[in-house]
Amino acid sequence: MCTGHGPSSSHSSRVTAARRLLKRSFREADRAFLAEGPQAVREALAAGAARAPSPVREVFVTADAGRRHPDLLATAGAAGVPVHHVSDSVLAALTQTVTPQGVVAVCSFLDVSLETVTAAPGGPPRLVAVLAQVRDPGNAGTVLRAADAAGADAVVLTSASVDPYNGKCVRASAGSLFHLPVVSGVSAADAVTALRAAGLQVLAADGAGDTDLDDATDAGRLAAPTAWLFGNEAWGLPAEVRALADAVVRVPIHGRAESLNLAAAAAVCLYASARAQRRASP
Amino acid sequence: MCTGHGPSSSHSSRVTAARRLLKRSFREADRAFLAEGPQAVREALAAGAARAPSPVREVFVTADAGRRHPDLLATAGAAGVPVHHVSDSVLAALTQTVTPQGVVAVCSFLDVSLETVTAAPGGPPRLVAVLAQVRDPGNAGTVLRAADAAGADAVVLTSASVDPYNGKCVRASAGSLFHLPVVSGVSAADAVTALRAAGLQVLAADGAGDTDLDDATDAGRLAAPTAWLFGNEAWGLPAEVRALADAVVRVPIHGRAESLNLAAAAAVCLYASARAQRRASP
Repeated sequence: MCTGHGPSSSHSSRVTAARRLLKRSFREADRAFLAEGPQAVREALAAGAARAPSPVREVFVTADAGRRHPDLLATAGAAGVPVHHVSDSVLAALTQTVTPQGVVAVCSFLDVSLETVTAAPGGPPRLVAVLAQVRDPGNAGTVLRAADAAGADAVVLTSASVDPYNGKCVRASAGSLFHLPVVSGVSAADAVTALRAAGLQVLAADGAGDTDLDDATDAGRLAAPTAWLFGNEAWGLPAEVRALADAVVRVPIHGRAESLNLAAAAAVCLYASARAQRRASP
Repeated sequence: MCTGHGPSSSHSSRVTAARRLLKRSFREADRAFLAEGPQAVREALAAGAARAPSPVREVFVTADAGRRHPDLLATAGAAGVPVHHVSDSVLAALTQTVTPQGVVAVCSFLDVSLETVTAAPGGPPRLVAVLAQVRDPGNAGTVLRAADAAGADAVVLTSASVDPYNGKCVRASAGSLFHLPVVSGVSAADAVTALRAAGLQVLAADGAGDTDLDDATDAGRLAAPTAWLFGNEAWGLPAEVRALADAVVRVPIHGRAESLNLAAAAAVCLYASARAQRRASP
């Protein structure tokens, strides 16, 4: 899946093209992003093994990282993914971390349409996380990871949310960006309409909600297929997004904290649903 | 509660003394730390209203922040806490954030002994989080916040864990550092011995645990008073710490994520206990 910067282009022009992907405008122009570190590259290559075409376009690796992770080079080679050996300084220029881990993959965008999620061959989704106006990429990636862990069928980032291909989001997702379908750039209203039409109830998570999560659990409400709406870092959902939901649910605050942080609240809500759905299944 | 740098010392020596508290060694020498931003300063002053002596030794504020938060100055004044008006650049030198919020409090250390927790006048604790070898201050602060939200009675940071007065930990705790008793600098073994003697079961949270959290919940096991042991960022607890526990519990991973991040896992475990304990109570 090499594009313009294939085998015939020079080493330095490949590096230059990859380095541009640190910026969102270039990511969107190329529909490509950077996945950094052995864990992310391994997950990207594994995602390629599960479907064609592979999302991995090329891999940059230092000599040291190549020795430490021979499995990555072997997997990339077997998949026909070009591997470029580069110096430590060139690799560092492709990363945003203080201590680069020596390997970076250029990957094609992964996001799918809402219809791909609602009309999945395995049947309609039962658990979906919708991030509305989540602006911090680290938070978005951590919620992606929690949604993956809780067995969610998809994650939706609305158009007012952070770019899922931001380097911090990719790193915080710890590989989960490659594990489950991600929808990006739709409005909260369109996401809710499509998910409701697919048979999901829509629950907004908000500290000021009038329904207690434990009460909703006891009432059997969480056993139904559910799309959860999560708001931005201050954990507020805009009123117009809350109004889209069938219920506004609060994680109970038993102590004196004003709220939970976004990722913790999302983990508690998604795991409450996962448990209720599994306990209700035959 | 002014100490050496009271009203008679010069403005610049007060600033110099406060600025040193950005470093752990000086924090430990003075048994004082910095709380930055209106939320943290408000919580610190509120903690002072709840007990004597107040943890707040002095407050530094810019003219702009003073206008935006007159309540803080009024509360500090009513409590007899010295307030120093400083320039934006002096305030910035007391902070570690990119966009300082204009107000910083110098606070006395808050941590208490294990005995204070286990022999609390209200009876033994029912829910305690023990952080063993948690090195990232942001993670430690986020777990503190989640423990507060879940109604935990105390948080213990073992001696191999991060300093709870690190600026990032204070900020990530979002005020919770001032809400619940924190024990610092004890060994995991001493913490477990004391908490078990106070009647708590000890559950280690670990992705490789042989007990599923949902199964433990169904078996009624979480209704009992519980101390949870949480490990470092890779979510591993050292074998010798796991061996101290009555059971090693895993949050089930339903999807393809390798693990949850520390704060999400801690939130799920602590909320599972909070719910079970509350549902079991008369």
